[in-house]
Amino acid sequence: MADIIPLTIRCHRAISRSNHILLPITLIHHMTHTTTGPTPPSPTTTITTRNYHQNNNHHNHNHHNHNPPPTKPTMANSKYEYTRNFETPHPLLLNTYIILRLDGRSFTNFTQTHNFQKPNDPRALHLMNASATATLRTLPDITVAFGVSDEFSFLLPRECALFDRREDKLISTVVSTFTGWYVFLWPKYFGGGEGEGEEEKPLLAPPSFDCRAVCYPSMGNVRDYFAWRQVDTHINNLYNTAFWALVLKGGLSRREADAELRGTFSADKNEILFSRFGINYNNEPEMYRKGSVVYRDYRTLEDEDEDATAKATATATAPAEPSTSTEPPERNEQREEEQQTTAVPKFKSKTQREKEKKRARKAKIVTEHVDIIGDEFWKERPWLLGSGN
Amino acid sequence: MADIIPLTIRCHRAISRSNHILLPITLIHHMTHTTTGPTPPSPTTTITTRNYHQNNNHHNHNHHNHNPPPTKPTMANSKYEYTRNFETPHPLLLNTYIILRLDGRSFTNFTQTHNFQKPNDPRALHLMNASATATLRTLPDITVAFGVSDEFSFLLPRECALFDRREDKLISTVVSTFTGWYVFLWPKYFGGGEGEGEEEKPLLAPPSFDCRAVCYPSMGNVRDYFAWRQVDTHINNLYNTAFWALVLKGGLSRREADAELRGTFSADKNEILFSRFGINYNNEPEMYRKGSVVYRDYRTLEDEDEDATAKATATATAPAEPSTSTEPPERNEQREEEQQTTAVPKFKSKTQREKEKKRARKAKIVTEHVDIIGDEFWKERPWLLGSGN
Amino acid sequence: MADIIPLTIRCHRAISRSNHILLPITLIHHMTHTTTGPTPPSPTTTITTRNYHQNNNHHNHNHHNHNPPPTKPTMANSKYEYTRNFETPHPLLLNTYIILRLDGRSFTNFTQTHNFQKPNDPRALHLMNASATATLRTLPDITVAFGVSDEFSFLLPRECALFDRREDKLISTVVSTFTGWYVFLWPKYFGGGEGEGEEEKPLLAPPSFDCRAVCYPSMGNVRDYFAWRQVDTHINNLYNTAFWALVLKGGLSRREADAELRGTFSADKNEILFSRFGINYNNEPEMYRKGSVVYRDYRTLEDEDEDATAKATATATAPAEPSTSTEPPERNEQREEEQQTTAVPKFKSKTQREKEKKRARKAKIVTEHVDIIGDEFWKERPWLLGSGN
Amino acid sequence: MADIIPLTIRCHRAISRSNHILLPITLIHHMTHTTTGPTPPSPTTTITTRNYHQNNNHHNHNHHNHNPPPTKPTMANSKYEYTRNFETPHPLLLNTYIILRLDGRSFTNFTQTHNFQKPNDPRALHLMNASATATLRTLPDITVAFGVSDEFSFLLPRECALFDRREDKLISTVVSTFTGWYVFLWPKYFGGGEGEGEEEKPLLAPPSFDCRAVCYPSMGNVRDYFAWRQVDTHINNLYNTAFWALVLKGGLSRREADAELRGTFSADKNEILFSRFGINYNNEPEMYRKGSVVYRDYRTLEDEDEDATAKATATATAPAEPSTSTEPPERNEQREEEQQTTAVPKFKSKTQREKEKKRARKAKIVTEHVDIIGDEFWKERPWLLGSGN
Repeated sequence: MADIIPLTIRCHRAISRSNHILLPITLIHHMTHTTTGPTPPSPTTTITTRNYHQNNNHHNHNHHNHNPPPTKPTMANSKYEYTRNFETPHPLLLNTYIILRLDGRSFTNFTQTHNFQKPNDPRALHLMNASATATLRTLPDITVAFGVSDEFSFLLPRECALFDRREDKLISTVVSTFTGWYVFLWPKYFGGGEGEGEEEKPLLAPPSFDCRAVCYPSMGNVRDYFAWRQVDTHINNLYNTAFWALVLKGGLSRREADAELRGTFSADKNEILFSRFGINYNNEPEMYRKGSVVYRDYRTLEDEDEDATAKATATATAPAEPSTSTEPPERNEQREEEQQTTAVPKFKSKTQREKEKKRARKAKIVTEHVDIIGDEFWKERPWLLGSGN
Repeated sequence: MADIIPLTIRCHRAISRSNHILLPITLIHHMTHTTTGPTPPSPTTTITTRNYHQNNNHHNHNHHNHNPPPTKPTMANSKYEYTRNFETPHPLLLNTYIILRLDGRSFTNFTQTHNFQKPNDPRALHLMNASATATLRTLPDITVAFGVSDEFSFLLPRECALFDRREDKLISTVVSTFTGWYVFLWPKYFGGGEGEGEEEKPLLAPPSFDCRAVCYPSMGNVRDYFAWRQVDTHINNLYNTAFWALVLKGGLSRREADAELRGTFSADKNEILFSRFGINYNNEPEMYRKGSVVYRDYRTLEDEDEDATAKATATATAPAEPSTSTEPPERNEQREEEQQTTAVPKFKSKTQREKEKKRARKAKIVTEHVDIIGDEFWKERPWLLGSGN
Repeated sequence: MADIIPLTIRCHRAISRSNHILLPITLIHHMTHTTTGPTPPSPTTTITTRNYHQNNNHHNHNHHNHNPPPTKPTMANSKYEYTRNFETPHPLLLNTYIILRLDGRSFTNFTQTHNFQKPNDPRALHLMNASATATLRTLPDITVAFGVSDEFSFLLPRECALFDRREDKLISTVVSTFTGWYVFLWPKYFGGGEGEGEEEKPLLAPPSFDCRAVCYPSMGNVRDYFAWRQVDTHINNLYNTAFWALVLKGGLSRREADAELRGTFSADKNEILFSRFGINYNNEPEMYRKGSVVYRDYRTLEDEDEDATAKATATATAPAEPSTSTEPPERNEQREEEQQTTAVPKFKSKTQREKEKKRARKAKIVTEHVDIIGDEFWKERPWLLGSGN
Repeated sequence: MADIIPLTIRCHRAISRSNHILLPITLIHHMTHTTTGPTPPSPTTTITTRNYHQNNNHHNHNHHNHNPPPTKPTMANSKYEYTRNFETPHPLLLNTYIILRLDGRSFTNFTQTHNFQKPNDPRALHLMNASATATLRTLPDITVAFGVSDEFSFLLPRECALFDRREDKLISTVVSTFTGWYVFLWPKYFGGGEGEGEEEKPLLAPPSFDCRAVCYPSMGNVRDYFAWRQVDTHINNLYNTAFWALVLKGGLSRREADAELRGTFSADKNEILFSRFGINYNNEPEMYRKGSVVYRDYRTLEDEDEDATAKATATATAPAEPSTSTEPPERNEQREEEQQTTAVPKFKSKTQREKEKKRARKAKIVTEHVDIIGDEFWKERPWLLGSGN
């Protein structure tokens, strides 16, 4: 049978000096028709390749991992492959912190469909936190995350090189991982088991989240970002607590409750809650008032470590300088000068990176409901923000 | 109780002439300390606002929908809110087709963990297609999608205005929706029910996908994009079919099978399959050889429609010109000339958009395994690509 | 003399699979201090390289052209070179038309300082046109430009690959070239010679222009862009003509003239000009009413050509297919079909590109003041917009 | 006369919540044809507007400045104006340093055409420096620039808000300003006057420069950037000095000189220069060895100032905190805490900004040829880099 016609296609690529792939310069193709026999059906007969392996490139996904991607793609699989040149990956600026914030889409509908408790549904919040925890476990580069309601913000340190810092890969991977776990873990939190002690709520349709990436050049900016989200948490939760007290306990319509709260200060809302409903807002659960911080806790890890050096490394994903004080003065001096005159993002050997990843995977991921506006939280966990520069 | 201290913060924003928010010019804040009583805990006492509704802005997610977002945010919730100015949304070029391609992450592991059949697992492919179908149902702007293995490409027509064409929102929403459905629908396809007639395979951990957006300026480029993916489908599937036949039926090790196929043409692989294993590759299931096209089929919808005008509209998501034939000739002429000299992306009234969305939601979403390299598929479904412009 | 200390620095780079340079993985440096002798002055003694040529990279500008840039930079000149990785070149979307529009900065001041005639200064406009002509001569990729007042728009065809379509290089090169010529040619137009017949006006300080790049996916969009600029030309010039007639001939103050024209239609302004100042606006110079089109005219070139093949090439900057007519019909058919089903941006061999550049350089660059809103102009000069694709 | 036909076009725009202009939703146009009389010539008769001033928008450049741009453009001038929506301005990340580096294009040709001295032409370098000085004078936001050969790098501090940090405007304005001055000042430096004491060299054609923008998140990165450029200056100049000594004094061909230097260390090149040509490289002019730093020197300004507060402000473009020491302790404490927990880019009142601009304009712009790799230069001029944030 000769209905398979070899079609050799060559795509000479040139790497431009600016390190971008240039357009294919020439597309040479030879096509030999077999004159006898019926016209072969497409695509079987239009495309064939001399050597699949030579043609293989990073986009071909073969689910057997003994097949290493070749280092130099020299041939295109087809004349259509030029369309991949339209991709314009967008790397995020080096040496900046990256925050990936995801947000529930149409969650008003989702919470109504699934009859979430108002103003806060503890099971839904625990599910969000568990999904964030799983996301941190899946992506060891993330050091800390903050969540409230249907949103979660994930922090990548400034030296992060995950996916070459490509915005699309970072955004999509985080939101896909989180969504997958949210749906996967739903039965655990809404299954009606004794752990939560409430009735079962089956998931009727999966929710979806959007996600964005924001770069912050300084540690101060990152601190302010998290402060912004926690302040918003407070403002929204105080409003929502008062609003739903008026509706659910005060018997007001939503419109009336809204009108009642319009123009009020925080003090006013606290007063309404206390005088009319006997609620001391400060006694409300901290998870509602302060949101949830999910982070990698290296301290527990350190306790297990015997080796002091390893311990030092553990306290900072960002390069620690723990031993400088024990070094002879001249070395210190030299190092200081270097720090003053250079700001090379700290690139690590592959061994070191692997080691750190391993440790990141071993570190306990904890969830707390604490103040992250002040200094205390960050000072006690210096590895979360890494080096200032 | 006076432990709540009013803190008024104003953030005057200016809209620049280039329609971007300028930096906040002034940050004025008054803080009044009450000297008596204990220091109030943070954040309860540090932030309060005169009027929540004035402060409300598009980021505050209150899960009660009677609360319309204010049109003019004139006040910041806190001094930290400046951090949102670091967001730089990236709208994709107008009047271009947008393709969103998602791809399984570490799917080699995932398929091994869940013991997928080799070289193709029909249940896994049907689950991919079902997830794509649900994604089209969720996002009516998508007209057609093509899937193979663990990847799926979704097409948004050139006039699409979804999310103001913001790259991050498009990417994240599509990949999150797809992932959610994949996990949600898993039990339906791997539940071991009679529909699939195989043993149950519980999902051990959710998979994740990455996603990218690519813009194509011309209809021809889009056609070539889909041709590229289908040619790759063929090349990969032929290789994989031969490879796994050698391994599973021929008793070769993976290394030996790989060596055997190195340097072979398609004809050679066909010959190996036929002569050694009695497999006629062309008789392999079309889903394996050609991948899956999932698209909105307006034709079934048309059959139900009585109204001829509506029918005409239905055949094109891109602007229909239903009434041209009934117009007096001079108007027609004028219109034609206008089409030659202008290329305004067709903006539709809100009513029209709503109408089209309704129709898109009503249209049947079908899955086929057909050739999409040739003209036939596209010519018979002109609404998929819309106007050539 | 041993005050030069060899410092070997190696920067191993890796090309990522997405064709972007990854961060340097390792920075290994050996530094050998000579202990005797005075500390050598910086930078002479801190940096030295084994081999300048190995270290050479595309950024080192040596003004002797016998020194070809090495193809594979394998060594960094210094530990500081990592800073170049912060560059994020932004290539403009393939297969789109690129328009580069420059605009005078603070030209109100510039025209007052140099006492330009109101409402139009013919010498200033001729200088603009001459600078645009020189820009087209310098950059053969530009096919056509449109200018009015202190702005000029330059068109690059959709297949343009100049500077790998890098936005920054395109913008900066066009605006720098134009500015250079504007200042260089000033004396020719304001020198007071007999050609212009007016008094000399020396340039007191150079003007500056800003520039932006806009991509248009379709030929229709490009046509509309130029129509937009010419409509604006008309609207502004009619207003300005009426305004300055009222001020200079009517004796009104600027404020009074402005008030007089507020709320008027074009017809009203025409009427004011005709009835009060005897000016028939349609008799005003076309350069004022329609702006200036500067384009490469291949028609004159064709007249000189004997060779029909060359002629065919000349009529289209977009890829000509001159030999199709001599091909056997079946090949033609196949080719046509291919054109229907593929939309490969036409990549040309280096030879062909060089040939076309040569012809572009030979083509006459003409300046006309004609309607570019209608079809006629473009239909008669099909090479300006190239293929519609 | 009724040949002017009113055509009313309304373009309702909507500002999206993400602060981007949405596409025009509706384009309503009424067109009234006058049936008698000849077809009116385009464009006069196709477009007319009710009120020019209402239609006016930021793109219409009228060279009379009494005509303030309206704040709310509510009407499009024409149906073609939609094409401006294709512009996608790209603002550079907030709170990062911006470096704009320009580079001569095809300067090998330019230097040969104008017969520049080898390896360094002092007049050409002085012209570069003078053009940079004029650029700093034109754009008061620039604090410092470094130049070598045909390149110049300009630094904008991290709080810079010029052009809303739009990349295209920054790039184009700097390169256009520089180019304009280069051409304008050419006769001063190559005019053959006594100042330079050499023969006149008329400019035969203007040069052009390209330009790019790079963001640096930390002060250390910026220091390293400038160090990189000065190290390159040294490496290139040592090579060029040796190369041209071998050619011009040693009688070698360029090829021979190149071969002679291949593989040599800096020490070797120094040795060649000293032993064969009696040149002590360290005695070469500093402008050649170290390049040129052009910066705004506030110190001279301070000397004239009587007011201590003003003096303090002058020493830092970045926000000075001069009065903290005189504040009562509790205020100081509070402020300190704020500095620890916030990193708001310091936004200034318009008055303060105007004041600073005035001072920037008054400050002397100086040119020096000194080491900028070490700390000394920067420590003595803290205002150049501003706050570390």
